[in-house]
Parts: sequence; C-alpha cells; structure tokens
Amino acid sequence: MGVGMKNRIYIVGIGPGREEMMTGEALHALEEADMIVGYTTYLRLLGERFRAKEQISTPMRREEERCRICFEEAEKGKTVALVCSGDAGIYGMASLMFEIGRAYPQTELFVVAGVTAASSGAAVLGAPLGHDFCAVSLSDLLTPWETIERRLLAAVEGDFVIVLYNPSSHKRKDYLKKACGILLRGMEESRACGYVENIGREGTRAEVCTLGELQDREVNMFTTVFIGNAASEIIDGRLVTKRGYRHGGETVI
Amino acid sequence: MGVGMKNRIYIVGIGPGREEMMTGEALHALEEADMIVGYTTYLRLLGERFRAKEQISTPMRREEERCRICFEEAEKGKTVALVCSGDAGIYGMASLMFEIGRAYPQTELFVVAGVTAASSGAAVLGAPLGHDFCAVSLSDLLTPWETIERRLLAAVEGDFVIVLYNPSSHKRKDYLKKACGILLRGMEESRACGYVENIGREGTRAEVCTLGELQDREVNMFTTVFIGNAASEIIDGRLVTKRGYRHGGETVI
Repeated sequence: MGVGMKNRIYIVGIGPGREEMMTGEALHALEEADMIVGYTTYLRLLGERFRAKEQISTPMRREEERCRICFEEAEKGKTVALVCSGDAGIYGMASLMFEIGRAYPQTELFVVAGVTAASSGAAVLGAPLGHDFCAVSLSDLLTPWETIERRLLAAVEGDFVIVLYNPSSHKRKDYLKKACGILLRGMEESRACGYVENIGREGTRAEVCTLGELQDREVNMFTTVFIGNAASEIIDGRLVTKRGYRHGGETVI
Repeated sequence: MGVGMKNRIYIVGIGPGREEMMTGEALHALEEADMIVGYTTYLRLLGERFRAKEQISTPMRREEERCRICFEEAEKGKTVALVCSGDAGIYGMASLMFEIGRAYPQTELFVVAGVTAASSGAAVLGAPLGHDFCAVSLSDLLTPWETIERRLLAAVEGDFVIVLYNPSSHKRKDYLKKACGILLRGMEESRACGYVENIGREGTRAEVCTLGELQDREVNMFTTVFIGNAASEIIDGRLVTKRGYRHGGETVI
C-alpha cells in the first residue's frame, strides 16, 4: 500500500463541551470521518450534528479497547475519528494510540488539538495562567500517589501556578483535601485559588477562594482546580496571576 | 450605568495561526467586535476576513499601551476584541488587562480561550503531553533568570514533561542552550525531546531529538520546545509520553 493510501485515524480534541468551543479543524475531521468512536458522554456532547454517522461508544476505563476498535475499523478502510474531551494530547487518548499504533503500521494517526480545561477554565476564572504553570492529575489509577505528591511539592518549589485535573471521583472524594494538605507545607493558607465546574457545559459554576478554604470544599469529577502562584491575586472576584508588568519598584516575579 | 449596559472587551486567543485552528467562539467575538486591537503580526494572521473592521495594531513590547487603547475605545461605547496568539490567558494579555481594568470598572472583560502552543505543538510532534507537564517561558524580560532556573530545576525534580515557550529571540540566542545545561544536571543526555517551528503557519517544521542534541540546535522565536519526562519515547519519529497504561509488570510512571 502506498504512503498516500494509508488508513487514517483522527484523534480529535473537542474542547470542554459546547460546539462553539471546538476548532474548525476538529469539526472538519469529524465531518470527514466515516465513523466516530468515543466515551459515551463525549459522543453525547457532540449533539445532533454527527448523529447520522456510524458511532461506537465505550464506557470509561475501557481506553485500550476503544483504541483497538479504532485501528480495526481503520483497517477495513474507514476513516475514523476518536473523540476526547478538551485537548486530545493532554490526559487524552493520543499517547495510548501511538503506543498501540506500533502494531498497525499501515494506519496513520493525526492529532487534532483542542482547548484543554486549563485554558477554558482559566478563561472563566479570569487569568490565573498569566505566568509559568503546571498541570497535575490527582488520579492515582495509573500513577502512584507518591509520584503525585512529589510533583505537587516540586510545583511549590518552582512557584508554578498549578492546575489540578481529576481532583475527585466517586472513590477519591478526599484527594483534593489531601493535595491541599501537601501544598500547605510550602504555601500560606491565604494563597489565591479558584475552581470551575462543568466548563463550557450547562451549569458552569466558578468560585474563587483561598487555599485554606479550598481544603474544605467538595468538588466533583467535572471540576478543574487552580492554585495561584506567589504573584496571583483575586481582583474583583477574578483569579489573576501577574506577569511582572507594571511592577516598577516592586519585586518582579 | 446598569450591569447589562457595561462596555465589553473580548480578549481572544486565536490559536497558532490558521483560521481553522480558531474556535467558533473566537470567530464570533471578532465578528461582534466594532474594533480589533493587537500586535501587528497577529492582525495579519487573521487574514482578509476581518479587514473591513476598524483595526489598531501596536508593535511588540507595547503591551500596556495596547491594553489602555482597548479600554479607551470601549469607553466610547465600542465593543473591542483584543487578539492574542495561542490562548489569551497563557502568556497572553488577559492578566495585564485585568490589572489595568481596575481603573475601568464600567468595562467588562470576557476571555475567549484558544489553542495554546503546548497543545498545537504537541499535536504536530505526536503525544508528548500524555502526562503531567509544565510550561516555562525562557524570556527574562519580565522574569529574573534565577526564577527561570529555579523552575527548570523544580520541573526536573517533579519529572514533569516541560514545554518551553519563548526559547529564543534576537538578543537571547543562547538561552535554549543554557536551559538544556540546567536540565542536564538532573536528566540523561538521551532524554527524548522535540520542537516545532511555525506551528499552524506556513513552513511548519518539527524535529525530534535527544536532550544532548537539543543543546546544540538553533531555534528561532517562533519555536516551541518539548522536553520529555522519564516515560517519554520516540516512536516511529513521534514524541510520545506514556500515561501508564499497558505497563503490566513494569514501573508505572
């Protein structure tokens, strides 16, 4: 089979939810696809527009199976789109697809970037990511908790703004509290924070608070949490991290 | 003036360049705006579509002036869109706008998220951001180099994938080399890396290499650099960071 004849799979980041927050490139990949594969909730987010396409949905935690389905369908000659929420590469399916893809050299993978929760959540809260930041997932399904703890401490050491993905789930209700406890070893309780639930979906809810307050908040699995750095402030109810402009005589971060 | 009557400024992330990589929301904000303000290069990237709108472009390093223009035009009753490349909040203008906005309480700010270079560059390279990562800007215009160094060392300590923004400029040609030198204190020369020039624009060029090789590469100011973590690999020419799936007996990162 010639290079131009390879099967195609698009790994598509659909952003936080509403179609308005998808890129044109993502919409075109879905339009071009013969088949759309994804976690049930994400297929539902796509709404009516692509309902006429052949669709396969698989439940959560069946990521490897979902990837194999894509390759098997592509081998039949179909153009497949695998949808991920947010960005396809950030805690998305892209890396697993490249790993599994070693066994399917006749299929070419195209990653279509999308707006990740760090960006879309920050836009709702104000401008928390105005300077260097890091993203840490609190899910210990695939990462030992010791690694998560080490990363949180390194983030404090580096004075990074921190974005927490997967801060909670049915089985991990107290993980945000645990994470805040670790951060408080090196941060004041007054550190400016914020969180957003259901970004870009119905029932979006944003809150700003201090790290001390955050420790006792209950958040759900559709929440993204932001911990400011030393230059973050709450300005008129918005979480803002200063870039270092406008600090004539003051310490520049 | 009632709440519903406030002046509006949209701070719009237009993604890496091509209109296809903008969200619908960003396009709608630009359509709604009476006036578009931005750095000359970004206005040019918008192309023909919005050329009929009133536009004000300001050169680089005049960020504060650019912000004040937005507020002054909004006070005249115009709806203003301030464009930023990538995401409006990540090394974009959003945080400075909120700071300056304290003096303009009658104007409301709306941040429109976009696809940042971490996402769009990662999509070109493969899937380097499959796990926890951090973004560090190598520009020391507003940040002391000691802070940048401290963040790079913290990123190594946390085994984060690292995305370097602003790795070079006319005056800072050797900063990537300096940064690699710092990283090599805690990383092997064989660490998998990659970089992308002109993401989403004409002349996109992606390279994968080792950290040892990266140290001697010359990159320009339109380049985004990715340093893998301990679980990153080059698979068929793509930079991939494994999430921890498929590692039965092996160490899970």
